[in-house]
Amino acid sequence: MRVSKYLLSTQKETPANAEVISHQLMLRAGLIRLNASGLYSWLPTGLKVLRKVEAIVRDEMEKAGAQEVLMPMVQPADLWQESGRWVEYGPELLRFQDRHNRDFVLGPTHEEVITDIVRKEVSSYKQLPMNLYQIQTKFRDEVRPRFGVMRGREFLMKDAYSFHLDQETMDDTYQSMHNAYSNILSRIGLEFRPVLADSGSIGGAMSHEFHVLAQSGEDLIAYSVDGEYAANIERAEAPMPTEERAAATQEMTLVDTLNAKTIAELVEQFDLDIKKTVKTLIVKGAEEDTPFVALLVRGDHDLNEIKAEKVPQVASPLEFATEEEIRSVIGAGPGSLGPVNLELPIIIDHSVAVMSDFGAGANIDDKHYFGINWERDLPLAQVADIRDVVEGEQAPDGGKYAFARGIEVGHIFQLGTKYSEAMNATVLNEQGKSQVLLMGCYGVGVSRIVAAAIEQNHDDRGIIWPDAIAPFKIGILPMNMHKSHRVKELAEKLYQDLTDLGIEVIFDDRKERPGVMFADMELVGVPHTIVIGDRNIDNGVLEYKNRKTGEKQDIPMDEVMSFLTEL
Amino acid sequence: MRVSKYLLSTQKETPANAEVISHQLMLRAGLIRLNASGLYSWLPTGLKVLRKVEAIVRDEMEKAGAQEVLMPMVQPADLWQESGRWVEYGPELLRFQDRHNRDFVLGPTHEEVITDIVRKEVSSYKQLPMNLYQIQTKFRDEVRPRFGVMRGREFLMKDAYSFHLDQETMDDTYQSMHNAYSNILSRIGLEFRPVLADSGSIGGAMSHEFHVLAQSGEDLIAYSVDGEYAANIERAEAPMPTEERAAATQEMTLVDTLNAKTIAELVEQFDLDIKKTVKTLIVKGAEEDTPFVALLVRGDHDLNEIKAEKVPQVASPLEFATEEEIRSVIGAGPGSLGPVNLELPIIIDHSVAVMSDFGAGANIDDKHYFGINWERDLPLAQVADIRDVVEGEQAPDGGKYAFARGIEVGHIFQLGTKYSEAMNATVLNEQGKSQVLLMGCYGVGVSRIVAAAIEQNHDDRGIIWPDAIAPFKIGILPMNMHKSHRVKELAEKLYQDLTDLGIEVIFDDRKERPGVMFADMELVGVPHTIVIGDRNIDNGVLEYKNRKTGEKQDIPMDEVMSFLTEL
Repeated sequence: MRVSKYLLSTQKETPANAEVISHQLMLRAGLIRLNASGLYSWLPTGLKVLRKVEAIVRDEMEKAGAQEVLMPMVQPADLWQESGRWVEYGPELLRFQDRHNRDFVLGPTHEEVITDIVRKEVSSYKQLPMNLYQIQTKFRDEVRPRFGVMRGREFLMKDAYSFHLDQETMDDTYQSMHNAYSNILSRIGLEFRPVLADSGSIGGAMSHEFHVLAQSGEDLIAYSVDGEYAANIERAEAPMPTEERAAATQEMTLVDTLNAKTIAELVEQFDLDIKKTVKTLIVKGAEEDTPFVALLVRGDHDLNEIKAEKVPQVASPLEFATEEEIRSVIGAGPGSLGPVNLELPIIIDHSVAVMSDFGAGANIDDKHYFGINWERDLPLAQVADIRDVVEGEQAPDGGKYAFARGIEVGHIFQLGTKYSEAMNATVLNEQGKSQVLLMGCYGVGVSRIVAAAIEQNHDDRGIIWPDAIAPFKIGILPMNMHKSHRVKELAEKLYQDLTDLGIEVIFDDRKERPGVMFADMELVGVPHTIVIGDRNIDNGVLEYKNRKTGEKQDIPMDEVMSFLTEL
Repeated sequence: MRVSKYLLSTQKETPANAEVISHQLMLRAGLIRLNASGLYSWLPTGLKVLRKVEAIVRDEMEKAGAQEVLMPMVQPADLWQESGRWVEYGPELLRFQDRHNRDFVLGPTHEEVITDIVRKEVSSYKQLPMNLYQIQTKFRDEVRPRFGVMRGREFLMKDAYSFHLDQETMDDTYQSMHNAYSNILSRIGLEFRPVLADSGSIGGAMSHEFHVLAQSGEDLIAYSVDGEYAANIERAEAPMPTEERAAATQEMTLVDTLNAKTIAELVEQFDLDIKKTVKTLIVKGAEEDTPFVALLVRGDHDLNEIKAEKVPQVASPLEFATEEEIRSVIGAGPGSLGPVNLELPIIIDHSVAVMSDFGAGANIDDKHYFGINWERDLPLAQVADIRDVVEGEQAPDGGKYAFARGIEVGHIFQLGTKYSEAMNATVLNEQGKSQVLLMGCYGVGVSRIVAAAIEQNHDDRGIIWPDAIAPFKIGILPMNMHKSHRVKELAEKLYQDLTDLGIEVIFDDRKERPGVMFADMELVGVPHTIVIGDRNIDNGVLEYKNRKTGEKQDIPMDEVMSFLTEL
């Protein structure tokens, strides 16, 4: 590609409103352009990368035996009414009417459409298991689109859906998708980690996320340093306390704590061990007759909202009571809450259940109880895992938890019969009886992978593409080509020879200063560049530069082709 | 591909509501499935074909020097307001609001978005000409979607947009797109014709359509039998009359024509030469002070509505006056209209201007004038080409007109400055002055090509794919494989060997009757099939069948691989 004939569209300035580095670099390197909030056009350089990711994803899906289909972006509402998601799905589901006032949605995902196809086309167990996928444009009406294509509204996704008669083939396909996703990210050249995940509103039992590791990642991953276990913090299992609850040694006393509204203030002012304090949080209850529920975690722990909303008494999605509600129900403010004399259902974390002689709010403004002991001062409450794990704690596999930040680029689920039951997707089994299908679904954020690759691979000069998805493999930078005939001749010949071999080359044939040309090449992240200048030619060499290592190397002119083709 | 592991989804019955053969066969062969009116999912077999068409289109666009981009399907309304099409475009433009009540459209085409990109990214004449394309999903809210993917609502399209400073490079790019489109259709293996076209509501001067020839085509093409000229009937030029107007020989007389409401009845009852009669049609006028205009064509000619609406006095789009309006303005019904004593602007076709002694309605119910002569009985009216051409007439290149039916699969336009002016897309020219860009646009209906290929290539047993876009090149049909070990062994080996060579094979490994397997293979349109049966093996041969010619051939077993790979 000759830069003079190419929409390179690089820019020096860091764009306003681009918070994360991948968004900044995708704009600066001319990969994408904003059309409206959360809506982007892919310029030629960006699209080349996107298509490479897409090709690797497709190849691994085919190898895993999945069959490609293509479903429409516009979907009839009646299928969503059938599955129940027409009501369940929030305003991220864009609903509209066509010219005949019929209801439609812009597909954020395709469980309904694929289930509709399968229930019509597949009638016998002989056709199963079946795994169908597409690489297709999705739309989610994010309330606050941000981070460029990382959380855009329209995006490219690979979504696959598998159908099964039994759990065994379900597990097999799930594992084959797990492998395919690992292969995809390995081939692209990214550091990643599959982690146990919460299956969220999409439903189902088993679920893994695939995270590209990057400091800027929105997700926190808790993994076992020496073991295999890894999970999104949202669902990382906290270890059960190994110690027994110690016997009470203190009397329970009511203490004035006028200026201690937070755990930190309480601990400081009264010289308490933070592990001898509890935080009490009031949330909405799941049932009408228990409108509020109290959740207790140890003072040094954080409530895990995802775990908490799975407790049957708690409303899902989790909703905290307002200060007003707390006052009207308990008669004290949020800074003075505790389990003693609390007339609400109480759920306590496992670590709280083994506490003794601990302090907590007294449900009277500006007062706490110290020296509280379970089963003496109040009955032991219902126990559950409702806190975030902490680094250094023991993971379920026996290793120690460490944390990493990740960008979720893939998610696989076992959905069970959630959709197939609602939509009556059945086939005849070997005994000739109608049986509801088991279903799995598997998503890869194709456009998001491009951004995640940049978050993981960049420096202060620009993008550092892994070779597998680089928009161009080799850059040719001729110095003063418009003045030096021999530089021009050599550059043109090298460009032609490499192009003839099917290698993707970007050839900067502009009348630009070398500094501009170097900066563009580094910003765009071309892995390998060759500099051609009169001085090099005098010495019989050309200068090679590796974008990743920064290493420079003089290559004898007659070895340049073999050197480059071997890369 | 093993059929046992493949979503073949063929069906014997011709589906109801599928009017055209391509729609019927795409459903029966398992290429597509209906999700909602005008919305289809592509099943694996259909998608394979679609992707092949897409790949050929992409390859020819790249060869022509166009750069691929990808714009969003959801577009902000403000760009459409800027171009004026927010108002101009009819209800085919699907408009909706997002969760923040902002207006958007589902893109039926991308002139606005691309012009917005180019005006921001391209600032210098040095970057021009530039041709940007995408292969992307479009949505048009057709009032009556029909013919399957031929006139669906969501469809795959290749759209390209070029930008220029001068007419010379505009013409060059236009010609290169003309060539690219011819290459695309030739490579796919379709009989087609580029024809001069009306540029319709999209605006601009020069325009060609590319039609796949098929009897079922919606469009009528008028082409010159011995020459090069070809045009959509909508804009095929009518020859100018070669004869002079003859002198008047009759008096103008008012005749009672009570039972002659049509030209046919008039001609029959009064023994007139139809070429001595005129049809008078009343349409809406373009200006408020001339609400109606009369259009006159010879009795044996048809009004050409596209040509008529280009006459400045006539409203565009063309709208016929209702019978009520005609009565209130003229005082007579539609069966008795004519130019004599008509107080409306009158536009006559060239062929009408040379008529003498002709008959027409008298603008009095049940009465006609016979023997009318221009410039004696009424002044000669304004003359224009407003009729369809007729087969056998002279085309502009001197040849004779013949007609063919076609399916429009491509359309190229020179748009001039319609969008760039409205949206202020300018660059600095060589003199450093701001100049408005010239623009071209070029569309290929990728999904429609699949349907058009079937309309042109089928028989009563199914589809006959051209090799270039066949979903599978070779079909392997083993007879009674589940009983005969040697049939199975041979079939499996052939399948493996061909697959290893990268040849796309469909291998019918089902426990099905031979009749079902043959029927499926012919319905799906696999170009080449190999039948493996015990009887063949006894004779040391396998049976080859060509889908297109129907030719069968016994191939010695040791030559099968070389025979098939040479195809």
